[in-house]
Amino acid sequence: MIRGVLLDLAGVIYQGETALPGALESVHRLREEGLPLRFVTNTTRMSKSMVLERLAKLGLDIAGSELFTPAQAARDWLAHNDCSPLLLVHPNLVQDFEDIPKRAQRAVVIGDAGDGFSYAHLNRAFRALIGGAQFIALAKNRDFKDEDGQLSLDAGAFVEALEFSSRHEALVLGKPARAFFEAALASMDCPPDRAVMVGDDAEADVAGALNAGLSSAVLVRTGKFRPGDETRFDPHPTVTVENVSAAADWIVAHSS
Amino acid sequence: MIRGVLLDLAGVIYQGETALPGALESVHRLREEGLPLRFVTNTTRMSKSMVLERLAKLGLDIAGSELFTPAQAARDWLAHNDCSPLLLVHPNLVQDFEDIPKRAQRAVVIGDAGDGFSYAHLNRAFRALIGGAQFIALAKNRDFKDEDGQLSLDAGAFVEALEFSSRHEALVLGKPARAFFEAALASMDCPPDRAVMVGDDAEADVAGALNAGLSSAVLVRTGKFRPGDETRFDPHPTVTVENVSAAADWIVAHSS
Repeated sequence: MIRGVLLDLAGVIYQGETALPGALESVHRLREEGLPLRFVTNTTRMSKSMVLERLAKLGLDIAGSELFTPAQAARDWLAHNDCSPLLLVHPNLVQDFEDIPKRAQRAVVIGDAGDGFSYAHLNRAFRALIGGAQFIALAKNRDFKDEDGQLSLDAGAFVEALEFSSRHEALVLGKPARAFFEAALASMDCPPDRAVMVGDDAEADVAGALNAGLSSAVLVRTGKFRPGDETRFDPHPTVTVENVSAAADWIVAHSS
Repeated sequence: MIRGVLLDLAGVIYQGETALPGALESVHRLREEGLPLRFVTNTTRMSKSMVLERLAKLGLDIAGSELFTPAQAARDWLAHNDCSPLLLVHPNLVQDFEDIPKRAQRAVVIGDAGDGFSYAHLNRAFRALIGGAQFIALAKNRDFKDEDGQLSLDAGAFVEALEFSSRHEALVLGKPARAFFEAALASMDCPPDRAVMVGDDAEADVAGALNAGLSSAVLVRTGKFRPGDETRFDPHPTVTVENVSAAADWIVAHSS
């Protein structure tokens, strides 16, 4: 019996600046069923307020407390661990790290910097890491579906690059980190074994959620989905469906 | 009984444009002992002719046939495998890939591109790989000692990045590839069990040579050497010494 729903954004709700077919109706339908929702995204090319704006433009008004981003998790981590960030992130994301006071230690914080992934920036982060800085990855996704419809390199490639050369493992704060799923579920008082995750990433969304103890995870054949993803990672999705509308059907059928 | 010597260049013979202390004398001494020498470098920021020029400027005249570079190994590989290269290399290295005829297949060829490692270039290589191109790495070193004396990211970081996101493993052609050591030894008719490697990289030079069957490998405390390298990788060096002069002493003592 499902009592709470986590939804990925890019590739599930929207693609670029366009809502995916049936996305808005699906969200409304789940809400009408009385199911609490949280949106959990690994997107780090937009600040939290930019994501909220994009959703509002698409006709989806959600509260800031309903949206979970890795940048927010990183701010919390930095505060708890007395670290100032050394940012290797997209210019859009810098505002999510403003007004952090100077602290005793440093942590490299890496997101999907896009064209900001220059050799000079990466080398600066590398030198900080071998000099003793902590190492935080907002996400470690391998790829994402880009605006031209093709797959592009995501932050994971560059996290892996720095891990390899510095011989330090990054702490990943976004999906598939258990703590990220847990924070979103805790905010709606939903135990993991009553929760479902809907995503287009068979690894970070689906396998990640199931490894975090969620009772089920729905893989949608939109966004970055490629044939074969159904069985590419363990654990496999509970079910694979065409799109978020079909996911909503499945969830409603399993919530009562 | 040692009958042939492989020498690394950067960090052993020279640092930047300067010969390391005792380097020239050591090479002359080994030659006077009648030991055949080959120079094996993973440097991919200079063409083969540029490396030969640099050595000549330092007072070390060697024949092209005494120098083994990964670019040369890559040209051979491309010819044998009917591939045209898609280059992700330093501008200096492009000349080593000139005049290759158009061939049936494509192979991504990655070296230490330095500032050429932009997001756009890496993403182009990523898309070629998931589209079916072969994947050749000239080297997979984690770091190198840069001109400012600090360690910098080497090609390995970017090889690892593309491997992670494309889920394709690169074929590494430079050190520590067994075939690279074997080609250098074969050119001087020296069996591996009579050969020694001298290098500052405990992983690619030392462990690589021993894994390729060389009887011994000398780690020098110059170049990128950092305390702890003596035991950081398996197998450990046969001996660790101050510099190439001390390496030559050790080799001469073990060659008769």
